[in-house]
Amino acid sequence: MPRQSASVRDKDGARLAEGVRQGDRLQLARAITLAEREDPRAPELLAALYPATGHAQIIGITGAPGTGKSTLVTALAQHLRAANQSVAIVAIDPTSPFTGGAILGDRVRMRALSGDAGVFIRSMATRGSLGGLSKTTGDVVTILDAAGFDRILVETVGVGQAEVEIATMAHTTLVVEAPGLGDEIQAIKAGILEIADILVVNKADRPGVDKTVQALEMMLALEPGGSRQVRHHGQLLQVNSPSRTHEEQAWRVKVLKTIASEDEGVAELVAQMDRHRQWLLSSGEWAVRERLRAAHTLESILRAELTRRIVARMPTDGLSDLVEAIRRRDTDPYHAAASLIASW
Amino acid sequence: MPRQSASVRDKDGARLAEGVRQGDRLQLARAITLAEREDPRAPELLAALYPATGHAQIIGITGAPGTGKSTLVTALAQHLRAANQSVAIVAIDPTSPFTGGAILGDRVRMRALSGDAGVFIRSMATRGSLGGLSKTTGDVVTILDAAGFDRILVETVGVGQAEVEIATMAHTTLVVEAPGLGDEIQAIKAGILEIADILVVNKADRPGVDKTVQALEMMLALEPGGSRQVRHHGQLLQVNSPSRTHEEQAWRVKVLKTIASEDEGVAELVAQMDRHRQWLLSSGEWAVRERLRAAHTLESILRAELTRRIVARMPTDGLSDLVEAIRRRDTDPYHAAASLIASW
Repeated sequence: MPRQSASVRDKDGARLAEGVRQGDRLQLARAITLAEREDPRAPELLAALYPATGHAQIIGITGAPGTGKSTLVTALAQHLRAANQSVAIVAIDPTSPFTGGAILGDRVRMRALSGDAGVFIRSMATRGSLGGLSKTTGDVVTILDAAGFDRILVETVGVGQAEVEIATMAHTTLVVEAPGLGDEIQAIKAGILEIADILVVNKADRPGVDKTVQALEMMLALEPGGSRQVRHHGQLLQVNSPSRTHEEQAWRVKVLKTIASEDEGVAELVAQMDRHRQWLLSSGEWAVRERLRAAHTLESILRAELTRRIVARMPTDGLSDLVEAIRRRDTDPYHAAASLIASW
Repeated sequence: MPRQSASVRDKDGARLAEGVRQGDRLQLARAITLAEREDPRAPELLAALYPATGHAQIIGITGAPGTGKSTLVTALAQHLRAANQSVAIVAIDPTSPFTGGAILGDRVRMRALSGDAGVFIRSMATRGSLGGLSKTTGDVVTILDAAGFDRILVETVGVGQAEVEIATMAHTTLVVEAPGLGDEIQAIKAGILEIADILVVNKADRPGVDKTVQALEMMLALEPGGSRQVRHHGQLLQVNSPSRTHEEQAWRVKVLKTIASEDEGVAELVAQMDRHRQWLLSSGEWAVRERLRAAHTLESILRAELTRRIVARMPTDGLSDLVEAIRRRDTDPYHAAASLIASW
């Protein structure tokens, strides 16, 4: 294939941005691939799309493996479609950096939702991103928002820091639990509770569901105000904490029971998501969360760009010898790092 | 408390390093706290300790929540102690960046192992580290290695990239599974299999154990050679792939069944860990993995140091306005990032 001239590429980029804004599926898929690969053309495309964003409700769905998130997300999408809302689903693939491969649940979902032009589904692997998972996910959400989707569902397997970061980027965060997943998950719960706007106990036909619901409600009761606190945990940027809303305006986190595979409780969950969106808009929290999202995005871009510049300055030879010297304990990695930095 | 002069602090640092090398528990705990807090004195301490490292077998234990890793690690420690090996346990706390708090399993473990001078246990939270989880964990492992522990068990909850990174730092990696944890975990398995030196199916008294073992053995059979491939997945440093060992010398990954709570199968698992250590030493793989670990450590230090320098250059005012301008879509984060970088 002949190499394209810069002007042709620019025209191509403008056409791509235009295609995305008009919701063209092929262009949308192309734009996402550019963002995922961190193609040099991606920043310009994303900058061009950014003014068209701000419409979508971004909904994070997180929870431990085995809670049935994929099934729940599929059921949510079906309900939202029935209410004439267009839906994009971004599923973060928990595949290790070592292997590719798609989530099993994804295939099930594809079957249930395929053929509907109002649904767009994309799985993302977590490996090999310069700026980390959250930057690439944020870029994909930007593209989908610009494409005009009403709701963007971002599904992550939640135990790590990256997953919680993604929740920080959402307007509404669902934390999904299930009965009988053991003590370790109970411990994780304590951390993840703080990011929940809505708590869902899925697989509610399992034994022990009432115990799980009670435990969650007790934990909620211990939290002052019972309202989610959104904070920016970036390392580079310090952003002011959101202003506290008045007590009478505070959002109450509720625990909802669902059996996603039987479509039980899903309608009520969708209604609660709608109430949360209404509350965000009427209380002024929407703007607060958008501000945090802006800070988060800026930081992710800065981090990725700086890493890129550092990689470019890395010496290509001599490094092997340095690593070998560290292994032999002829030097230590701390002095080696200091001398490398001094040489730049 | 009066401020100490630099020379007093240097003397204090030398005393601390000496105390760690002699296995003094109080000094050891102090040194780890310095490393965890990324205290300015930590790099010098770690550099002083580094030449004393290289003795310990570093064993990574990873797996999804609910597989019973904490109980298994406790049982392993008891067996190793019975064989007169000193043991350090580093448990990575999967707590979100939002809340502190210790793992529940940790308290159980403390009871089972407390009062034994040959065991040292430390839980680490994953939040707020400049260099990321892997840097701090690496630093703590360096300290414990210098303190003379024979085995260092690093326990992580494995679904994220950080957890797999830690496996890259270990000599021997155990991946723990359990029967009946659902499809999502099956999918994760595909990625995590590649890092396993030993596969453990714990909770082997649960229904479905044979199905789980068979599935794992089938997946292993599909891998060429059946031997773990250790790779360095750093973004900054490119390190040559380890040289392939001869076919007759290849390590065969085995699937072992355990019921850690009943101490069943644990003796055989310890024996397999010993065999793996012997194989590492006789095949030359030990040096290969040490080299990868050296590269990994160097990269982590570089990344943390560069992030520190960037933070120092971040403007303290005007940033709020920039974030607000992004939120209002007056500008986009890509142009904002470019202008910030240009201003440095």
